[in-house]
Amino acid sequence: MKVSIIVIGDELLLGQVTDTNSGEIARHIAPYGWEVEDVQTVGDEAHEITRAINRAFELSDVVLTTGGLGPTKDDITKQVLRDYFGGELKEDPEVLANVMDVVGRRGFKINKLTAAQAIVPTSCRVIQNRVGTAPIMWFEKDGRVLVSMPGVPFETREMFQSEVFPQLRKRFKSNVDIEHAVLMVTDYTESALAEKIAPWEEALPAYLHLAYLPKPGLIRLRIDGAHHDKEFITSEVRRAASELHDMLGNAVIATEDLTPAQILLKACEAKGMTLTTAESCTGGNIAHEITLIPGSSAVFTGGIVSYSNEVKMRLLGVNGETLAANGAVSIPVVEEMARGALSATGADIAVATSGIAGPDGGSAEKPVGTVCMAVATADGRCSSMVGKFPGNRGRVIDASTTKVLIMAVKHLRGE
Amino acid sequence: MKVSIIVIGDELLLGQVTDTNSGEIARHIAPYGWEVEDVQTVGDEAHEITRAINRAFELSDVVLTTGGLGPTKDDITKQVLRDYFGGELKEDPEVLANVMDVVGRRGFKINKLTAAQAIVPTSCRVIQNRVGTAPIMWFEKDGRVLVSMPGVPFETREMFQSEVFPQLRKRFKSNVDIEHAVLMVTDYTESALAEKIAPWEEALPAYLHLAYLPKPGLIRLRIDGAHHDKEFITSEVRRAASELHDMLGNAVIATEDLTPAQILLKACEAKGMTLTTAESCTGGNIAHEITLIPGSSAVFTGGIVSYSNEVKMRLLGVNGETLAANGAVSIPVVEEMARGALSATGADIAVATSGIAGPDGGSAEKPVGTVCMAVATADGRCSSMVGKFPGNRGRVIDASTTKVLIMAVKHLRGE
Repeated sequence: MKVSIIVIGDELLLGQVTDTNSGEIARHIAPYGWEVEDVQTVGDEAHEITRAINRAFELSDVVLTTGGLGPTKDDITKQVLRDYFGGELKEDPEVLANVMDVVGRRGFKINKLTAAQAIVPTSCRVIQNRVGTAPIMWFEKDGRVLVSMPGVPFETREMFQSEVFPQLRKRFKSNVDIEHAVLMVTDYTESALAEKIAPWEEALPAYLHLAYLPKPGLIRLRIDGAHHDKEFITSEVRRAASELHDMLGNAVIATEDLTPAQILLKACEAKGMTLTTAESCTGGNIAHEITLIPGSSAVFTGGIVSYSNEVKMRLLGVNGETLAANGAVSIPVVEEMARGALSATGADIAVATSGIAGPDGGSAEKPVGTVCMAVATADGRCSSMVGKFPGNRGRVIDASTTKVLIMAVKHLRGE
Repeated sequence: MKVSIIVIGDELLLGQVTDTNSGEIARHIAPYGWEVEDVQTVGDEAHEITRAINRAFELSDVVLTTGGLGPTKDDITKQVLRDYFGGELKEDPEVLANVMDVVGRRGFKINKLTAAQAIVPTSCRVIQNRVGTAPIMWFEKDGRVLVSMPGVPFETREMFQSEVFPQLRKRFKSNVDIEHAVLMVTDYTESALAEKIAPWEEALPAYLHLAYLPKPGLIRLRIDGAHHDKEFITSEVRRAASELHDMLGNAVIATEDLTPAQILLKACEAKGMTLTTAESCTGGNIAHEITLIPGSSAVFTGGIVSYSNEVKMRLLGVNGETLAANGAVSIPVVEEMARGALSATGADIAVATSGIAGPDGGSAEKPVGTVCMAVATADGRCSSMVGKFPGNRGRVIDASTTKVLIMAVKHLRGE
């Protein structure tokens, strides 16, 4: 099935807002074999919208529009759609009830502008927008469909996935079921991983598709399956995921789509352990990634950002002689930092970093991107390594954050 | 001048990559009175690209394309452009020299695929891409111009601003000069600020334009001026900025486009002071924002993420009785945290936070979003306040980070 998308809004052509709706739609329909043929971004002008609709129907049987429906703009888009598909603009009592319900749940009273959202062309079938005030309008002409959706990304995502796309699949008798599985893989670069699993991937049946999403230090492998037999595809996706897991062994760090911090928090929780951090070059980013996760306070006691050598000594008890003999960016220092964080906070496991994030401070021996990392546990075990990370300051910080969190997961697995 | 943009790449229609180039171009040309008429996103298919070019020239005299020029894809786009504008595909020795230079600076050797970047239609004028291997191709036909640029956002931004747009302005004899000034404003909501400066804004001459960019806790006001007389517009923009500054007084926290952390680092540096952090609900984000800035180690000694009460007591010396009497989210505790961070690290100024980032942990008295913040200096002064921040966990963390950094700037100004 071919789909064209029209993104409506002056703010997009001024570069004030970046369109993410078309990508969201594309990613959602791709596993079903539906394709986005093109995306047109146009302003809030009647002739521009009309021209875009004509162009879109040259290519596709399904045209999706997003935006152009705010209470201050809706006259234009709705008028255009009325002119294109016929009928007249009329207040729809069911839409009005829905708008009042949505506005009420937000703790506001309905005003005249918002009430106007209930005026829709009589030529459309409305899909009630459960999460916003702009109604979703479904038009048909000569066997082809146009669905007008709001521009607010949250509303479009929610309503497209739950209502619009399921109804489109029914309308075009596409009764395919999809299933997916995710493996989070470490230890491999993208190309090394691709090489390793190439023969297996090439032998995949047509109803299974493998996608890579590399992030620094971690690759998300996603297996998508599409088939009209739900039971069959469920078992096939599971079988493929388990084959892949066997092939990659310990490199698989999780079988859900989780961040490294989430994976570590789960591992700590499972063992009833508390977690702390001792950060030099990552400067608080590890603690930040951990504390972004709701409920992290059950595991994370706190940590120390020891940017200066003085703080490394005062708060983490790093030995001044160790610093003088090895420099701050060294395995002995980062190991003392990790052990020091355990003593300072009383936690059960500590992660520590000390490195050169750049742009200055590098040397021939320790260039920018060199990061020493350590993990220590209260049982006396300590794992450590030196990483070399490419890219600018922000990327070095992100990549070493990911790496040391994964080191800690492996440390807890006894690796 | 009307501009149409064509964004080329299968990865965009699959939703794997989000186009930011069109917005970047739109924002750059808007101050000059140039307008983006529409944006078309198409796949790496000859007929799609050709159709998009035809459509774009229906609307605009200038068509800009980005993408479709990777070493594995360039045959298609270049062939399409050759078919459209005539000529033949030929290796250009100057382009080859540039490609070898760019690849060499990255520490790689040139291979066959990369060398093919030097093959360009003879009907184009090449603008050498200083920051990448795909040449920028300038075509003219019937007084209209198409410029093909690479898809890598960094390359497009760099080359569009430094070469392509200046050359387009010359070609279309648009000899307008622009100047701008920025004020970073705190203490106002966007609507309160808009109301306050409305009479002044309405009286602005046509060659001056005011834009708002609100961020949580901070508003960036940007004055853009466009005029053919460079000296005149420079003095006019300066005059307007100074009028605005007089009107807003202390609410102006900086006259450059800086982040709150950058503003505070500059203020500390000017006074020769060192900085520390004591974070509970912000969980390391303040330290992270500070240490993202190159050179921050000259000012920032380090800090403590005191998530648990035990760590607040052990590392920051918060009194157990203060915690028991007031709870962790209280002014007395956050003030003790700030003073404790000064003692623990030996720094000259400390910022501290303790709050409820959510989604759980709120109460009637202290709902989710309540954050106590304090700033303490070695001279014994301590400023503190309670903030109520809307939104989810990430937004509460971001907004309170911004707020306490600005509190520290004001504290240093003696406010």
